[in-house]
Amino acid sequence: MLDPLANIPRAKRGGTAPQTQKQDQMPRIVMKFGGTSVANLDRIRDVAQRVKREVDAGNQVAVVLSAMAGTTNQLVGWCQALAPLHDAREYDTVVATGEQVTTGLLAIALQEIGIEARSWQGWQIPIRTDNAHGKARILSIDGADLIARMGRRQVAVVSGFQGLAPDNRIATLGRGGSDTSAVALAAALKADRCDIYTDVDGIYTTDPRIVPQARKLAKISYEEMLELASVGAKVLQSRSVELAMNERVRVQVLSSFEDKPGTLVVDEDEIVEKEIVSGIAYARDEAKITLRRVADRPGIAATIFGKLAEENINVDMIVQNISADGTTDMTFTIGKTDLPRTHAALLAIREQVGWTDVLEDPNVAKISVVGVGMRSHAGVANTMFRALADKAINIQVISTSEIKVSVLIGAEYTELAVRALHTAYGLDAA
Amino acid sequence: MLDPLANIPRAKRGGTAPQTQKQDQMPRIVMKFGGTSVANLDRIRDVAQRVKREVDAGNQVAVVLSAMAGTTNQLVGWCQALAPLHDAREYDTVVATGEQVTTGLLAIALQEIGIEARSWQGWQIPIRTDNAHGKARILSIDGADLIARMGRRQVAVVSGFQGLAPDNRIATLGRGGSDTSAVALAAALKADRCDIYTDVDGIYTTDPRIVPQARKLAKISYEEMLELASVGAKVLQSRSVELAMNERVRVQVLSSFEDKPGTLVVDEDEIVEKEIVSGIAYARDEAKITLRRVADRPGIAATIFGKLAEENINVDMIVQNISADGTTDMTFTIGKTDLPRTHAALLAIREQVGWTDVLEDPNVAKISVVGVGMRSHAGVANTMFRALADKAINIQVISTSEIKVSVLIGAEYTELAVRALHTAYGLDAA
Repeated sequence: MLDPLANIPRAKRGGTAPQTQKQDQMPRIVMKFGGTSVANLDRIRDVAQRVKREVDAGNQVAVVLSAMAGTTNQLVGWCQALAPLHDAREYDTVVATGEQVTTGLLAIALQEIGIEARSWQGWQIPIRTDNAHGKARILSIDGADLIARMGRRQVAVVSGFQGLAPDNRIATLGRGGSDTSAVALAAALKADRCDIYTDVDGIYTTDPRIVPQARKLAKISYEEMLELASVGAKVLQSRSVELAMNERVRVQVLSSFEDKPGTLVVDEDEIVEKEIVSGIAYARDEAKITLRRVADRPGIAATIFGKLAEENINVDMIVQNISADGTTDMTFTIGKTDLPRTHAALLAIREQVGWTDVLEDPNVAKISVVGVGMRSHAGVANTMFRALADKAINIQVISTSEIKVSVLIGAEYTELAVRALHTAYGLDAA
Repeated sequence: MLDPLANIPRAKRGGTAPQTQKQDQMPRIVMKFGGTSVANLDRIRDVAQRVKREVDAGNQVAVVLSAMAGTTNQLVGWCQALAPLHDAREYDTVVATGEQVTTGLLAIALQEIGIEARSWQGWQIPIRTDNAHGKARILSIDGADLIARMGRRQVAVVSGFQGLAPDNRIATLGRGGSDTSAVALAAALKADRCDIYTDVDGIYTTDPRIVPQARKLAKISYEEMLELASVGAKVLQSRSVELAMNERVRVQVLSSFEDKPGTLVVDEDEIVEKEIVSGIAYARDEAKITLRRVADRPGIAATIFGKLAEENINVDMIVQNISADGTTDMTFTIGKTDLPRTHAALLAIREQVGWTDVLEDPNVAKISVVGVGMRSHAGVANTMFRALADKAINIQVISTSEIKVSVLIGAEYTELAVRALHTAYGLDAA
């Protein structure tokens, strides 16, 4: 496959050295399958065959599983039906059963095709977490026994999404936590790679449903993946990418249903030739709020965003216009679902802040261009502004980071903007 | 309620003293609910209310639960579909999730109505078992933490049917094991009583579907219950009754759906006035086999029943007629489902044993009269034989134990025989 990152001169290296391959022993990999990949017995048999291929190819294998698709929702629904505000420890006890079922079943399916296998729940390894039941964080994983067993060719089938809290009770990591389990296990096992099987076959330069010419990336850096994950390409849970970056775990995103290479998420240093822009992302789940004619004096921003933080409302982009007559306009974006709560929170501080109007606009989209190559290239933002201007798309808010430029535009221009930018940065497939 | 055991003089006491009630603290009880009692969220809420009533009445309470009705069968079915001969350790991992779900849900339902509660899986207490996965036996239960928590008014909601094996893996006790879990927990917690909630409201003098005048017993001894359990009244698992007898746990069988006292299964010494006959049981799941004209010499019986034992075929009643011309007829009963295997086993030893014919008759019923009072009363068997003769029912085989007389008759006479005996022993309700 053509390396899409092959055209740009190698940027200056920094940070730690890339993880070295173990030369003295069999490669060790972690394979993670989500709920749709284990949704029924036939799918579980398919997963067993895929694991067998990796074992037959000489790999030591650990598998991390989610619950059957639909199971977790049903279990969560039962807890909520019994008590809207239920004990998180009991919720964890109930919900963690989904993975216990799939790991046991996959171990049976593997044994049936001649692969030695054993299932593992979080409490058995143990995967130790903090006490934040329902949204726990992994603190440590004792991989010694598993490494020894994998060395004897036994496949470890591990429940994702769960661990053992200090209170000797099961703790779950929160929805989507199985990706994080897989990456943490890969780190603990010193695995050469963590393969995340999903319903997409890799990371694309943008959403192929919008831009048919979108290309699959062979490699992408952790930093880029984090920016893409946070702006709309919901392939990997952000926490899992952060963990992979911190622990230098090489992650591959690939398809559960096709048999071809996916996209490697790796240290920037492993990407020899860097694109200036690796991908175009979009998000339509934000709303824009403008406070008109806010008193322009110190502490006003702290009052506004302090109140929102207190209410657990996540603020994304923030723009403050230059002050004219002692007042200023303050614009920011929040998640659309937080609009009612934000409205209430702002009313509560109206006296202190003293604006004239609140303008709320849910019909916006955030478009982002992401690429580590930006660090060494000027003019990236300008290319974006010009491409959007050429299509007569008005930019409402601009926000930049070291490797990302995001703009807020009218939601109806989303597809047009993504296509224009994909072409402008030379990402269209030949 | 009338005590049906009040008419007979008190028999001589023997054995250990009855368990004394704790006077110095709140009564401690174990409540066990089966799958139909927790089949859905409404039923779980009903169970929570029932537990609340016991707590409100001043009891310390531990609850033992089965999985939702149907769940265990589904999980077992999945294991079997993936591999007919599956690893029992993985089977246990999969199947034990059913109880994990119901215990977590009941803890939530209890908390929602203001009762402090906490769920417990076998590995958390721990309930230690042997390594016989899929049919493990409980070795020990560490009740200290639970007793301390119950003393602080926290209800312990414990998964039945499971424990922690020496290999640090979940072990299940085999189908129906939740009764055994409850009795073992009651012993470990030194509970005053173990209440087993079922779909019947107690133990009757016989099957009320056959004899409408059947009476519910207020009390029955462990020994009688064991005989009744083994001959057809499938209310309590035999193992749980044996355990209750050994550990002197007072067991109450009562209805999940009605709010009235059930039947206490207790030490014989607790039953002040003993009936001669407590109940009439029947079983239609046995088949009769007769070997005609077997050589009448030493070792023949050992050859026949040794072979059947070797094949794991359970033999119940055995009768050998008096020898005439150096040959004898050997009659015995086995489970109907074992008929084909028994046939094959007998053919394999035909040369050694040398019979002329094998007669197989699956159309038989075993009728038993059970009562600890028999020990001190003569004529019990004779009453039975006369009552059957009066109805012209032919007795094919007779077998007796210290507290039981069983006869084998034609299956078509089952109801007639049960009714006749119920009347003959004066068990009909007034």
